[in-house]
Amino acid sequence: MRAVTGLMFPQFEMLDLFGPLEMFGLLPDEFKIQMVAETDDPVSCSQGPRTVVDATFDEVPQCDLLLVPGGAGTRKEIDNPILIDWIAHASHNSEIIMSVCTGSVLLAQAGTLNGKRATTNKRAFDWVSSQALTVTWIGQARWVQDGNIFTSSGVSAGIDMSLAVIAALCGPSTARQVCLWAEYQWNDDPNVDPFSV
Amino acid sequence: MRAVTGLMFPQFEMLDLFGPLEMFGLLPDEFKIQMVAETDDPVSCSQGPRTVVDATFDEVPQCDLLLVPGGAGTRKEIDNPILIDWIAHASHNSEIIMSVCTGSVLLAQAGTLNGKRATTNKRAFDWVSSQALTVTWIGQARWVQDGNIFTSSGVSAGIDMSLAVIAALCGPSTARQVCLWAEYQWNDDPNVDPFSV
Repeated sequence: MRAVTGLMFPQFEMLDLFGPLEMFGLLPDEFKIQMVAETDDPVSCSQGPRTVVDATFDEVPQCDLLLVPGGAGTRKEIDNPILIDWIAHASHNSEIIMSVCTGSVLLAQAGTLNGKRATTNKRAFDWVSSQALTVTWIGQARWVQDGNIFTSSGVSAGIDMSLAVIAALCGPSTARQVCLWAEYQWNDDPNVDPFSV
Repeated sequence: MRAVTGLMFPQFEMLDLFGPLEMFGLLPDEFKIQMVAETDDPVSCSQGPRTVVDATFDEVPQCDLLLVPGGAGTRKEIDNPILIDWIAHASHNSEIIMSVCTGSVLLAQAGTLNGKRATTNKRAFDWVSSQALTVTWIGQARWVQDGNIFTSSGVSAGIDMSLAVIAALCGPSTARQVCLWAEYQWNDDPNVDPFSV
């Protein structure tokens, strides 16, 4: 059983977290989900709904799988040393590190992407790539895998990436079974990116 | 400005709500999201995370847009007269009524689908259709529109349906813009159903 840790901060993008977490959550014998934030106050996403915090940063020194969302809140959190330091420490021994959309800018700020290949939302590509010059940013990719780090393009691309992680950890047939349960048409080729810039 | 009301009950399916709500939430000048439940305790979805309740049933006598999710919890809620009565009353004057996955069995139980065409998750088709004999259940459809009622197939199909509702209310170009922001490849033909039984 692996824990999937969903990082929350004010104005995270709703589907960046709940799309991938749905896919992991369909395998309750393999994955347990926990929602983590800086304090224990419920966290509002960009779209409004508030999610309860299962554990605060100090309670989660390390993750099995870490999922970092994007959203409008990243523009503020990039300058939040508490959050950035937590990502740096928590990701250090993580089995798998994932970001969706502009979540990759937070991974970059934490140093996690130094010398790595990564991608992000194509609508925010110029901003993200200007923030982190030590990262090789890929402009055409649904998602990018570099070792144990998976970064995806915008919002919905996170679902495709999470299925690739499930395939890597549990086998491709398990990922296909999840797609069937969720009636999801998986874009399973990371290089096919209809939204590239 | 229209309010989109997301109905919650224990063990609702996470993406059934948060997929469509992401799409509406990307248009904050058009839609405001509120999460509604029987009591004001945070509600756990099937995948674990808990969502804060914005308003209880007695505070929401009527909806602009009502969104009813499916999930394991529907097997219990179909016998919850408080929830079923609220759906019956709240949907009576709603502009748009939507369900995802087995959420349609709750609409059927409330009488909302009497004499209507509807669909549901294809893995639960036999159970749902056996519960509601006054509904014409469509076995091959990504989603079904009958008047102001939109019912979708399983989980991910709700996203495709919500974009059809956005297209109907705000125009197709707005729906396409939402897809671009969310980097979502919209399955925009309701009759193409790769998961049909």
